[in-house]
Order: sequence, then structure tokens, then C-alpha cells
Amino acid sequence: MNLNYVYINDTFVESAQASLLISDLSIQRGYGIFDFFKTINGKPIFLEDHLERFYHSANKMHLDVGYTKEQLKSILDELLVKNNIPDASIRITLTGGYATDGYTLAKPNMVITQQPLSLKLEIDPKGINLVTYPHQRQLSDVKTLDYLMAIWLQPFIKEQGADDVLYHADGLIKECPRSNFFIVNGNNEVITAQNHVLKGVIRKNVLQLKHPDFKVIERDFNLQELENATEAFITSTTKHILPVVGINGKQIGNGKAGSVTKKLSDLLLQNIRHQIG
Amino acid sequence: MNLNYVYINDTFVESAQASLLISDLSIQRGYGIFDFFKTINGKPIFLEDHLERFYHSANKMHLDVGYTKEQLKSILDELLVKNNIPDASIRITLTGGYATDGYTLAKPNMVITQQPLSLKLEIDPKGINLVTYPHQRQLSDVKTLDYLMAIWLQPFIKEQGADDVLYHADGLIKECPRSNFFIVNGNNEVITAQNHVLKGVIRKNVLQLKHPDFKVIERDFNLQELENATEAFITSTTKHILPVVGINGKQIGNGKAGSVTKKLSDLLLQNIRHQIG
Repeated sequence: MNLNYVYINDTFVESAQASLLISDLSIQRGYGIFDFFKTINGKPIFLEDHLERFYHSANKMHLDVGYTKEQLKSILDELLVKNNIPDASIRITLTGGYATDGYTLAKPNMVITQQPLSLKLEIDPKGINLVTYPHQRQLSDVKTLDYLMAIWLQPFIKEQGADDVLYHADGLIKECPRSNFFIVNGNNEVITAQNHVLKGVIRKNVLQLKHPDFKVIERDFNLQELENATEAFITSTTKHILPVVGINGKQIGNGKAGSVTKKLSDLLLQNIRHQIG
Repeated sequence: MNLNYVYINDTFVESAQASLLISDLSIQRGYGIFDFFKTINGKPIFLEDHLERFYHSANKMHLDVGYTKEQLKSILDELLVKNNIPDASIRITLTGGYATDGYTLAKPNMVITQQPLSLKLEIDPKGINLVTYPHQRQLSDVKTLDYLMAIWLQPFIKEQGADDVLYHADGLIKECPRSNFFIVNGNNEVITAQNHVLKGVIRKNVLQLKHPDFKVIERDFNLQELENATEAFITSTTKHILPVVGINGKQIGNGKAGSVTKKLSDLLLQNIRHQIG
């Protein structure tokens, strides 16, 4: 990590000193939530969506944020000024706190970090390859700290010559560990899983995009529909819309970024450029 | 936590200062393993079983312990001497390490803590009540840090007037978050789930107990068999054998510690007393 300021429980500390006591429930029991957004040219992108999800995650996991949304925004403003990194990622983590018995929820610890992040506002036409794996994320509508399966699968993903993993469960396609997954079918429908997935902020904003040539919908779809997809892509805060050109070693469409994917990416990036002003 | 020494990465530090940098993969992604055993009168109980499982967990999760079993035992000896707490619990935690990108496995961090723990070597005849909940632990044969569901369910357990939760999945009974679960049936069979559960050290030692009046076996069993159980109990390092007297508000057997449960508890406690010498 770079040397810059980290916010921990009402204090700014240098990142080299930023630590939590080992009684914290993230270290003891993997318990906590986070959210992750970016700034471009000092402007936070989709901040309201991220904060809304952060408070939803905290509430669902019985964690008290301890600040109103306005107070949290002030802290973020202060951090941005102190660090002065215009193009950056910001992660707000809320853990289960210092548990005296190593098990019971205590006053949450909040940690806010900022890292340089430079993104090109254009589509990567090369795309990526995915490999599927059967897994259902637990408490899937919450952005928890649980990436046990994702990190455990890293050697498997590498062995399979893929860039990331796509989870499926009970025959239905779900999501990637850090991104949502979309297909385009022969009816010009753009589809992403509806149930038991994390509702990503880019996913939400892609679902709102309008174009005369296709419609974007959320509904569950199965492995057969994936097989027949004409295009596929993932969405995430750092990837925006990134084409998926192959799954399990089999090419999707013509193995390049599809035309619907490109049009959606253009619309999304327009939206983001608008926020930068 | 008490003020005593904690071992972190080749150093002993006072527990009040024992911390990990926030880039650790337990804080970032909930990634790590641990094991937990006890000493009575300064004697570690079932130590070989715990160390065997710890190395199994580390290996499965792509984590290098960094010490041989003999080296780890020397460190444990030194910690026991430094802290001088004859009746204690010891927890060895191994995390995914300080990840520069917050995602990729690095050199693991090892943390060993010791806490006072005073156990009575006799059965608790009062027993406990459980409530069932559908859940399958991920990577279930590994003692990971993942207790997301367990801690999330604490308010539910309390609302239901229960002491702990019993997981089931696909119609089969599994385990409790920190203990294995056994039933006794009308044929004097003592049964614990075979697949997709953590293989507890007390569970393993109970499976080895011999008695002319009953046999102890591992095989999967369903909710119907649970309904018809004449006795039930849980096993864990801190509970040994603890009777379960009710599930989902319905009494098991006569609502007291059963005779088979008591006989098994006697045999187990004999074994433990033998280790204390």
C-alpha cells in the first residue's frame, strides 16, 4: 500500500501504522462489511449509490455505522483533501469490533483507506475469459468481507487459463466474486441474474440505461442460456463494462467485444463523464 | 482480553499491543484459518489432533505455516512458560497475510493467543436448546475464519429462546457453528454427520469410544431421524459432551441428559483425565 492517510475510528493515521487489534471480529471470525468506490479528478462517482448500499449492508449485519450519511461524507471530504489523490479508490470497511470473547458483536471499527487508481474511460476490446464454479455466496445481498471461496479459487482459475470465476448454483448463473455478470441473447435482451447476488452499483446503473436496439432486464437465467449467449460482459466499479469473450474455454459470440456491449459501455461512460463535469 | 503475551510472526508482544496491519487478508477478505485447544494443569489436551488439523487447514487453503510441527510445539511451550496460565485456551490463527493489492495471498501472518479457561470435568446435566437453520458451511472440512452466518444468527437464536443453532442442508443435519452434533436412536446407535462438516477433535475422539451398550458411527442423517432421536448432544473443545435437551422448542427424549450421553461423557472425561496424569 502507498503511504497516505487512513481513517480509523475518528482518527487519521499514516497507512504504515494503520492496524486493528487482533480481537477484532474480522480477524477472529471474518465478520464485517465494506464498500468501495472511486474518484476521478477528485469527483466521487456514484457516491450516493455506494453509501446507500453501505448503510444497507451495515444494517443487515447488525453493525452500527455510528455516523450519519452527511457526517460520513464530511470525513470522506477531509480524507480526500489530506491525501490529495484525484484519481483514487476509496474503501470503507466496518468490522464486528473488538470482541472480548472473540465471538460477540461489539462497537464496530471503521477503517477508510484511499489508494491511487487510474482508469481509462474506454472499453477494453480484448475482454476476459471466465471459468464457471458451483458456489452460492452466503448473505449474498450484503457486501461482506467473505471472499473465502474467491481467494481459495485463485490457483484453480490460473490452472484453467481464465481471468476470473463465474459462480452458478442450482443450475442458475449468479455473479463473479467482485463483479456482476450479463449476457446478451438472440432477442436483443441484456440479462443479469436477479436473485441471490450482490446488487452492484454499476449493475444498477446499467439496468437503467435505455437504447432503442435492446432492453436491459434482471431475471435469473440458466447454464443453457449462457451457452446460447451472443455476447457477455461483467460490470464493476473498477472495470465499468468489460467484455467476456470466452467461458470454460469456449468462445462467446465471435470472441470479441460485442456491439451491444460496446453501445452499453458508451452510455455508461457518458454517464460517468457527466459526473466528472 | 487479559493482559498476557501473544505470539505474532516470530515475536512475543503484550496482548494490548497485539495487532495486524489493515492490509491483512483477514481484515480485507475474511481469509484465514485457526485451531483452538486447551491446557489443563499446563498439559495440552489432544494436541496432536489439533496440530494435524491445523496443518491440514493451512495446506487446503494454500497457506504456508512456515514452521514444522516440532518448531510450532517449541513456540507453544515458550508461550505457556511466559504466560503461566495452567488452565487455558490457546488459539493459533494463520491469515492470508499482508496483501499489497488487498486480494492476493501473501506471506501468512501467524498469531497465537492464550486465555484463561477453567473447565469442570463433569457433564452439565441441564443441557442446552438448539434451533435449526438451513445453511451449508463453505469449505466445510477446513477450520476457516468464516463465522459470518453464525454471528449474524445471534439475534435470531436469542429470539427463538435457544442457546445455539444447528445447521441443516438438503434435508441432512450438519453441525453447530462451533461444535459437532450427535443423536442417539432407538437402536442404541450414536450418530454424527459424515459429510460436509468440520471434523472436530472431540468428535473424532468420541467416534473412537467403545461401549457394549451402543456403537458410535458417522453417517449422514435427516430431519426425520432427528425428530425420532432419543438423546442428542454436541461436542467441542470447551464443552466436551454437552446434552441437547430440546430442538426448535420440542423436547428431546425426557428433556434431560440421556443415559448413553452420560456414559459417553464419562469415557471421554476418563480419556482427558488420563492425559492430565
